Amino acid sequence: MKTEVCDRLGIEFPLFAFSHCRDVVAAVTNAGGFGVLGAVAYSPDRLEEELRWIDDHVGGRPYGVDVLVPGKIAKEAAEGSGSLLSAVPPQHWEFLKGLFEKYGVPVPETAADARVDGVGRQVTQQGATELIDVALAHPIRLIASALGPPPPVMVERARAAGVPVAALVGTVEHARRQVEAGVDLIVAQGGEAGGHTGEISTMVLVPEVVDAVAPLPVLAAGGIATGRQMAAALALGASGVWCGSVWLTTEEAETLPAVKAKMLAATSRDTVRSRSRTGKPARQLRSAWTDEWDSPDSPGPLPMPLQMIVAEGAMAPIGKAAESGNEGARQLANYFVGQVVGQMNTVKPARQVVYDMIEEFADALERLNRITDA
Amino acid sequence: MKTEVCDRLGIEFPLFAFSHCRDVVAAVTNAGGFGVLGAVAYSPDRLEEELRWIDDHVGGRPYGVDVLVPGKIAKEAAEGSGSLLSAVPPQHWEFLKGLFEKYGVPVPETAADARVDGVGRQVTQQGATELIDVALAHPIRLIASALGPPPPVMVERARAAGVPVAALVGTVEHARRQVEAGVDLIVAQGGEAGGHTGEISTMVLVPEVVDAVAPLPVLAAGGIATGRQMAAALALGASGVWCGSVWLTTEEAETLPAVKAKMLAATSRDTVRSRSRTGKPARQLRSAWTDEWDSPDSPGPLPMPLQMIVAEGAMAPIGKAAESGNEGARQLANYFVGQVVGQMNTVKPARQVVYDMIEEFADALERLNRITDA
Repeated sequence: MKTEVCDRLGIEFPLFAFSHCRDVVAAVTNAGGFGVLGAVAYSPDRLEEELRWIDDHVGGRPYGVDVLVPGKIAKEAAEGSGSLLSAVPPQHWEFLKGLFEKYGVPVPETAADARVDGVGRQVTQQGATELIDVALAHPIRLIASALGPPPPVMVERARAAGVPVAALVGTVEHARRQVEAGVDLIVAQGGEAGGHTGEISTMVLVPEVVDAVAPLPVLAAGGIATGRQMAAALALGASGVWCGSVWLTTEEAETLPAVKAKMLAATSRDTVRSRSRTGKPARQLRSAWTDEWDSPDSPGPLPMPLQMIVAEGAMAPIGKAAESGNEGARQLANYFVGQVVGQMNTVKPARQVVYDMIEEFADALERLNRITDA
Repeated sequence: MKTEVCDRLGIEFPLFAFSHCRDVVAAVTNAGGFGVLGAVAYSPDRLEEELRWIDDHVGGRPYGVDVLVPGKIAKEAAEGSGSLLSAVPPQHWEFLKGLFEKYGVPVPETAADARVDGVGRQVTQQGATELIDVALAHPIRLIASALGPPPPVMVERARAAGVPVAALVGTVEHARRQVEAGVDLIVAQGGEAGGHTGEISTMVLVPEVVDAVAPLPVLAAGGIATGRQMAAALALGASGVWCGSVWLTTEEAETLPAVKAKMLAATSRDTVRSRSRTGKPARQLRSAWTDEWDSPDSPGPLPMPLQMIVAEGAMAPIGKAAESGNEGARQLANYFVGQVVGQMNTVKPARQVVYDMIEEFADALERLNRITDA
């Protein structure tokens, strides 16, 4: 296969795998696609370690890194971890404690503190800049901004390093702003996608964005987990596809077993777009966690990154309790995933997902040609 | 082009046009597609008149009729128009009157009464059965149920008349129920579609439904207004596409000029899924009407068909006032339309929409083949 991005990035299939798991990134890159490591959950040291591992396992084949650099964030986030923690109102901690009690999950003592230097910090401009520097010191072939236009520092440093910049968008207006910010590759992500997402569907968004940013290449994201969907995305004018959800149930994925089981059993109706994990609307498994935070009795999710501190601090002990068979914890457990979760019904190696998609893509195209030739 | 439905229905392109406007139905059928007249707004006499006109204008080419037969409706609806009217709580009439006053639109005296024998009645089982009988007396080639599984009477009478039955679905579960109800053709409609719609996107829903109901053919609906989107839908496994929104800005469409102007100017962000027009979630232009009914001060939309009586009774005088330049009425005016409204930017004959889609479809397929051959 050959599109603009295949040529530019030196890949066989224009299939991008966004994953927080280095094994998935390496497996997809080695299978002829392009792995992108989501770095938001990592400290600079940890990211350095992950990228070294990837370098050791891809034999020079191309991969990328994705950093979340929010445009608008709570001002406390810029002032260090003390301010961050104290910016969470007491009623939110009480609501959280009430949830643990209601669902019979042991209440953690210091969960929140442990995460402040992690998730809370990385989504500040300074934290993100440190991650960018670590990433650009490795032979990455793409750096992506997961939320909002990349800051000038990201574009400048990437340019200097000769690394193209990609950015995710959910509307045509966002896409135009990204082009102005100097982005080289646009990922148009429909509302059916997992994680932070808008409301315009992939079917509608992709051709709009393709027309708006031409001749810049566009990758389609959201609703893509099979070769038929990949063929559809390319028919819409995309130059490739950007998949996140489908890797979460692969053999390599570090998804919590309780969450993986939920995903394998879920249908396409079992996701919800909720602010309850990060403070911004993000599609995820619907669970007791999303139901409770989105209920009328909830104090309501906080802005990013405060809600991330509350949620990620809670998800670690919830995940641990779920693994040890705590039923309430299983009910609360969730994770970001798109509506394609309904099609994720078997555990396969990530490599096999790539091969299956490419084979099904070919079948879909053959059917299209049969329909037209007849 | 040749798919199962082309063979079965004797059409050149598997492009179905759902429209309440007979001119659109005839134009699409005459251009090689398949026009489907939406009959919900018509009395039996009016439907008879419309179908005679179509028969006179399509020279024996195939077309169909779509009837809305709700499964669950307010019980008052079955008891005649007196019960229907009195089932609308006083506070809803007062809220409506308040809206007219707030937006400076003359308050109609009898708008609601005038519509009870229209919209309110047709969505009862008895009303729908009368429409089915009228439709089956014409040489229609398809009868469709727009909402929920078709009642046994529809399937039986259609079978007896040798007419295939189609039904719209928004989930795999609905699709399975439709198959059990004896439907011959499934229309899988994504949440980006205009009118009554679920939340699963076309990209995700279509392949799921195709797999679930095989070997029954599936048409894709929602997010399809161009040839690229048609190619994408067929890549997903659909045997054709069912388009509703794109006809609303054609030359033939009877869309109110004020609404048509709004649609031509709208972006894909300007729709909302709201219960404010029918009582069930339906995607439509976002306007002062949807904002007011969905605001915390609203008494909340009533169940179907009561909300239809309130809304349709109001939309006629609002439309009239909007035409005479009333600014408040223009703000309130809206209509059902999908997210593709952002791509509907020029007024063309319906015939031209068909030709443009087929040409763009061919271009999209050629691009796909180039990508793969390279």
